[in-house]
Amino acid sequence: MTAGAAPPRYAYLGPEGTFTEAALTAALAAAGGAAAGAERVAYASVPAALDAVRVGEVEGAMVPFESSVGGSVPTTLDELASGAPLVIRAETHLPVAFALLARAGTATADVRSVAGHPQALLQCRRWLRDKLPGAETVEAASNTAAARLVADGVHDAALAPLPAAQTYGLEVLAADVHDVAGAETRFVLVVRPEAPGSATGSDKTSLVLVIRDDHPGALLEILTEFAVRGINLTRIESRPTGDGIGDYFFSVDAEGHVDEARVGEALIGLHRICADVRYLGSYPRADGGRPVLRRGVSDAEYAQAQAWLARVREGRARS
Amino acid sequence: MTAGAAPPRYAYLGPEGTFTEAALTAALAAAGGAAAGAERVAYASVPAALDAVRVGEVEGAMVPFESSVGGSVPTTLDELASGAPLVIRAETHLPVAFALLARAGTATADVRSVAGHPQALLQCRRWLRDKLPGAETVEAASNTAAARLVADGVHDAALAPLPAAQTYGLEVLAADVHDVAGAETRFVLVVRPEAPGSATGSDKTSLVLVIRDDHPGALLEILTEFAVRGINLTRIESRPTGDGIGDYFFSVDAEGHVDEARVGEALIGLHRICADVRYLGSYPRADGGRPVLRRGVSDAEYAQAQAWLARVREGRARS
Amino acid sequence: MTAGAAPPRYAYLGPEGTFTEAALTAALAAAGGAAAGAERVAYASVPAALDAVRVGEVEGAMVPFESSVGGSVPTTLDELASGAPLVIRAETHLPVAFALLARAGTATADVRSVAGHPQALLQCRRWLRDKLPGAETVEAASNTAAARLVADGVHDAALAPLPAAQTYGLEVLAADVHDVAGAETRFVLVVRPEAPGSATGSDKTSLVLVIRDDHPGALLEILTEFAVRGINLTRIESRPTGDGIGDYFFSVDAEGHVDEARVGEALIGLHRICADVRYLGSYPRADGGRPVLRRGVSDAEYAQAQAWLARVREGRARS
Amino acid sequence: MTAGAAPPRYAYLGPEGTFTEAALTAALAAAGGAAAGAERVAYASVPAALDAVRVGEVEGAMVPFESSVGGSVPTTLDELASGAPLVIRAETHLPVAFALLARAGTATADVRSVAGHPQALLQCRRWLRDKLPGAETVEAASNTAAARLVADGVHDAALAPLPAAQTYGLEVLAADVHDVAGAETRFVLVVRPEAPGSATGSDKTSLVLVIRDDHPGALLEILTEFAVRGINLTRIESRPTGDGIGDYFFSVDAEGHVDEARVGEALIGLHRICADVRYLGSYPRADGGRPVLRRGVSDAEYAQAQAWLARVREGRARS
Repeated sequence: MTAGAAPPRYAYLGPEGTFTEAALTAALAAAGGAAAGAERVAYASVPAALDAVRVGEVEGAMVPFESSVGGSVPTTLDELASGAPLVIRAETHLPVAFALLARAGTATADVRSVAGHPQALLQCRRWLRDKLPGAETVEAASNTAAARLVADGVHDAALAPLPAAQTYGLEVLAADVHDVAGAETRFVLVVRPEAPGSATGSDKTSLVLVIRDDHPGALLEILTEFAVRGINLTRIESRPTGDGIGDYFFSVDAEGHVDEARVGEALIGLHRICADVRYLGSYPRADGGRPVLRRGVSDAEYAQAQAWLARVREGRARS
Repeated sequence: MTAGAAPPRYAYLGPEGTFTEAALTAALAAAGGAAAGAERVAYASVPAALDAVRVGEVEGAMVPFESSVGGSVPTTLDELASGAPLVIRAETHLPVAFALLARAGTATADVRSVAGHPQALLQCRRWLRDKLPGAETVEAASNTAAARLVADGVHDAALAPLPAAQTYGLEVLAADVHDVAGAETRFVLVVRPEAPGSATGSDKTSLVLVIRDDHPGALLEILTEFAVRGINLTRIESRPTGDGIGDYFFSVDAEGHVDEARVGEALIGLHRICADVRYLGSYPRADGGRPVLRRGVSDAEYAQAQAWLARVREGRARS
Repeated sequence: MTAGAAPPRYAYLGPEGTFTEAALTAALAAAGGAAAGAERVAYASVPAALDAVRVGEVEGAMVPFESSVGGSVPTTLDELASGAPLVIRAETHLPVAFALLARAGTATADVRSVAGHPQALLQCRRWLRDKLPGAETVEAASNTAAARLVADGVHDAALAPLPAAQTYGLEVLAADVHDVAGAETRFVLVVRPEAPGSATGSDKTSLVLVIRDDHPGALLEILTEFAVRGINLTRIESRPTGDGIGDYFFSVDAEGHVDEARVGEALIGLHRICADVRYLGSYPRADGGRPVLRRGVSDAEYAQAQAWLARVREGRARS
Repeated sequence: MTAGAAPPRYAYLGPEGTFTEAALTAALAAAGGAAAGAERVAYASVPAALDAVRVGEVEGAMVPFESSVGGSVPTTLDELASGAPLVIRAETHLPVAFALLARAGTATADVRSVAGHPQALLQCRRWLRDKLPGAETVEAASNTAAARLVADGVHDAALAPLPAAQTYGLEVLAADVHDVAGAETRFVLVVRPEAPGSATGSDKTSLVLVIRDDHPGALLEILTEFAVRGINLTRIESRPTGDGIGDYFFSVDAEGHVDEARVGEALIGLHRICADVRYLGSYPRADGGRPVLRRGVSDAEYAQAQAWLARVREGRARS
């Protein structure tokens, strides 16, 4: 980028103060270079953030993908599976922690109603039952919406991440009110199609797979395309196609990088048997996990076998 | 039931006027007998309705399970997968339809904000973009919560099922504003463990499967236990166990009834290889679909093979 | 057996002095009791020996099944696969060793022709090339036929087992003339259908499997019936059905005993998908090998899973 | 070939007058060109004929491979699986027919002994039982050896192919004495490694596969490499490696040609997982059978999928 050029812009699922903004900040810092100085722009919804990428308003968008407690974010899965293609450039895991926030001057004993996203209410269920047995729980559309309802005086307290206290001028009645320690959320940085970064040995490849027709064993066939090449799946989910109960597509994350021979061959196999395969990117794993490769599936073994086949076809092979 | 006995009580995910209440009413009428005169009790959440079944406050509970557009209801899946065991006695499919509701006197041109459950906003996205391009969309916790926010004057219009107009004293600005026709939601009637009804030839069996350890090919092994016995799956979903990103259990629906030989043998196989199998019931399919059985998996063929094995073990077999 | 009763009679592939007679003698001694005093009767061919069992002339017949160098004995496989059913009660492995036999007074330097069964000529090929480079090799119908041709003066020397020297009045020019040490032959003791002996933990079950129609993947289906229950095959062979090139049945040996749950279930599965399954017996392994059972396939785990299924069907299961 | 050059030489399993010579004659005529004028040289054994190819004494060798009644010829399988590599250039199927031959002046009523190869005796068993119930049957090393034994006056009659009558100066007592009509033998023309002929759409590829270690499911893995690419096997046989009972390699024929994408990919897969893969040639099928390709495995579909993968890797793919 030449001097004076505008910094790149990145979208995130807002409002400010959410975990998603924190994930974007961390990812841009990790990327370094021009990205480190990028402008961060809040969007009101996942579809809005992704559409901003599609039309070129922003370089990329950070959106939540799944949580270790609540599971996948259906809107993210569905939006990536349709519309103009997008790919994942990076993923980030962030620990999830909830605090109980209230307006200044509120004592815990005064709390009669607690607002929270359904996931937050679920994850703090036991704490609320023990400490605020008499309080009514009210579902809110997001963590920050819950905080805003408290700031606006509609409810007495909110379950929200700690930074929301400052954003909405609230006080922290209690920190870490979630029942299960160690919960985390996975965020993905989504960009327009681009060649993937180099394989690192600790990569994931995300795909959307549409089965050609829903015959018995169709999913088994898909899994076999991975298994026969020694590729483990770290996630598989069915999502409705919208065509009726019982009609699904599959969203999967596979270990490995599209530039690796076994992953490339598996993708060729899937493309041949599926009605549609949408490639959603190869990117380094946030957890640093490395696949345990079984014998015969490394790039070196593929190269040896391909060289042997070339000799066979030319009549020069020994065995 | 003796004369004068109280009628049975059934829970449903309230408030009144939701699709879930309609599903319960239909199911009780179909069941006939004492059920037809049952009392219907609204509960504020799926966990609350299911806990009411567990402690015996009610005979059963009708809860939403999945939608052909939005996919599964995570809370329902997760609540059935943990806690004291429950089973599904019946399922019901209802068409999904949204209307745009407003307070009396509101013209479509006046609508500046539209409240709706995220699923509703998603399913009506194109209609809103075309007809109300300037209106703000606001996420609400449920369809009826959206209607209440309009009745309370917080927002101008709500996406909700038609019956909500009467419940909340609203008027219908437009009916059928959903983008995709033919969408439907599947509801399940959940009861305490009981022997299943007789096999009808058009049945489903629901299961929760926890893989023993997440080795490559573990899901393939599970699917093979079904496939080798000619059993098709109509749904498979991964749900987080709560122990970290990448740790899942599987929620599946299989064609067939637990009393059928092939299903029983598959369950034995799953029980042997899984860390845990939770049986969630065998019940008639709402769509009336019947499995196309491949050769060798009918109850008659199982019986013949078992009789042959008995002869082999006694030294009396020919071949 | 009452005093004065005739001792049981057992057939073997003759003539006297063959490895097969030695195998029968060893097996009868191991069986003990009345068998130890059994009369041994030589038959001219495998079909003749097996027919003698079928019609009740003898209690059982010892026949060669396969050799570690020459492979299976096709006649034995084919005769067991058709006709009135027979089962294997026991197997015996014997080391194979060849000597070069000649009439008294013959010097090695005088040997111009060597008779031997094609297998024997194959197994001694390098020795003959090195030590008797000028001698002609002549194929004979059996080891003992070769010895007889030498005794009759037709050829100069024979490849045969050492005991044949005494039987035919020949001298040993050289012992251990086979090229590969450690070769062995497997013999089986065949009887009319009877209940198998008790499982020992080191057993084999032999089967003949006829595929229903030769569709792609039919063999894969058969192997899957074993694999899904953790059963290893120690031998699988295709044999022509006689209906044309490309039409085969399969002869297999599986680890385990028909009385074990996993083997029984696999047999039921095979019976359901095959055009025909012929059970050829469960019997102790001659090599003493024990299967390494993977998790979930022991009789105890089967029993637990079956008890759980019974509870599920009665509405009493927890999980 | 320049004028005056010696014609090419081809070996066959002799002696003259065997089915194998007839197969070679037919194959050379079909090949046309220089081959049609080739010299045919009889060798005494399959190993001798194949060694003649290896050392360059002959262009190629015609040897028997399997019969629809007797099964594979073990020596041919074993010799192709070891030693310097050879490949199959062509295969020929010939009908098998046996006649009963005797010296001039012999009446059927006079026949007291019948010589024949064990396969011949097996295939004519019922005819002999019906027509010559009192005659002794004697095993001979080959069809023509049987004829020679009769010509030499050792036995009264021989089972042999019709042309042997002329070769050995015998008369035909009865033609077509085999019990099963339509039996045939498959012969293969073996040459030194060469690039295969072009794919015809009706081809076979022969392979020798050595499993890396005999773990449970190893054969299943091999079959899966074929099945996942829609390749049917027309023959699979286990043969002993010579290292002890229970140690086998596999000899297989697969539908398709090594130049086809699905076959090439399968060979790469086998090479990666097997201890050894020996390619034995791609050649036109004698029976003219054509594979029924399932969706996704044609060369065109492979090419499309590979082009898509290239676009994905360059960041240009849509889906």
